[in-house]
Amino acid sequence: MDLKNYITDVPDFPKEGIVFKDISPLLVNARATNYAVELLAKGLYDIKATKVIGIESRGFLFGSLLAQKLGLGFVPVRKPGKLPGKILSESYDLEYGTDSLEIKAESIAEGDLVIVHDDVLATGGTAAAACRLVEHCGGKVVQCNFLMELDFLNGRKKLSSYSLHSLLHY
Amino acid sequence: MDLKNYITDVPDFPKEGIVFKDISPLLVNARATNYAVELLAKGLYDIKATKVIGIESRGFLFGSLLAQKLGLGFVPVRKPGKLPGKILSESYDLEYGTDSLEIKAESIAEGDLVIVHDDVLATGGTAAAACRLVEHCGGKVVQCNFLMELDFLNGRKKLSSYSLHSLLHY
Repeated sequence: MDLKNYITDVPDFPKEGIVFKDISPLLVNARATNYAVELLAKGLYDIKATKVIGIESRGFLFGSLLAQKLGLGFVPVRKPGKLPGKILSESYDLEYGTDSLEIKAESIAEGDLVIVHDDVLATGGTAAAACRLVEHCGGKVVQCNFLMELDFLNGRKKLSSYSLHSLLHY
Repeated sequence: MDLKNYITDVPDFPKEGIVFKDISPLLVNARATNYAVELLAKGLYDIKATKVIGIESRGFLFGSLLAQKLGLGFVPVRKPGKLPGKILSESYDLEYGTDSLEIKAESIAEGDLVIVHDDVLATGGTAAAACRLVEHCGGKVVQCNFLMELDFLNGRKKLSSYSLHSLLHY
């Protein structure tokens, strides 16, 4: 099964010049989704990870499936203002301006071994911020895990200190 | 296993007077998460559903898990501007003003039997909008499915024409 058959290009979305990778055809096919999760999990059974982080929103989809496949707990990293209680925040650069991500401080403990999942690795800013959040909590990132990587944006440079696995490359 | 032990009350979040139901302790426990998904799926094996819809963002978590458990495709219903291609939109009332939800028109086909999932049933406005989206696509809602229902907000009144299942009641 070639998973690239389940990801479609949408030109000029969300704005002109950007080719959006649409995972809707993958999600709507239960067999292809399960196959993708199995491949995302491959190699992770031997790593003694303790938690999977998924980055809001699309990272919630395969992130929670990956966590269940591995029998691990899932921790959401969210946009500002969504998580209650004591939170930690990390900002990252956008094309214009900055944005930030939040995590519940108690959700990662000292010594946790964490898989950081998102659907797409683009410039790497979001994933790098998520990794910093894990480390501020006292956890260790054991893998940055992506459904697909946009190689030409060179996002893995920002994540060079981590083990990195992307299922598909464009 | 009492799932309510994995959901904590956070008073005055996101604003004063609101008691937020935090599902973080549930998500971070893989066994409890799996148990919740099994209970959400109960009774659905006999219904010949064809797709599961999850409402952004928290509905993505158990929505995608529920879809996989049932071996069904997953369709995201998202906030405005996130989905590419031809979309349908439905607005719903907030306490002040309105908001809207979108679905890819092609994601639900004529004759699809759809389970609409979200984590919380509060006033019912969001879920009702999601059900209208399904129907505009030509699909039929076979169940509105929630992790928890805030009974005192009487949201099920807005969904009275649908079969409704909430795992937990508050």
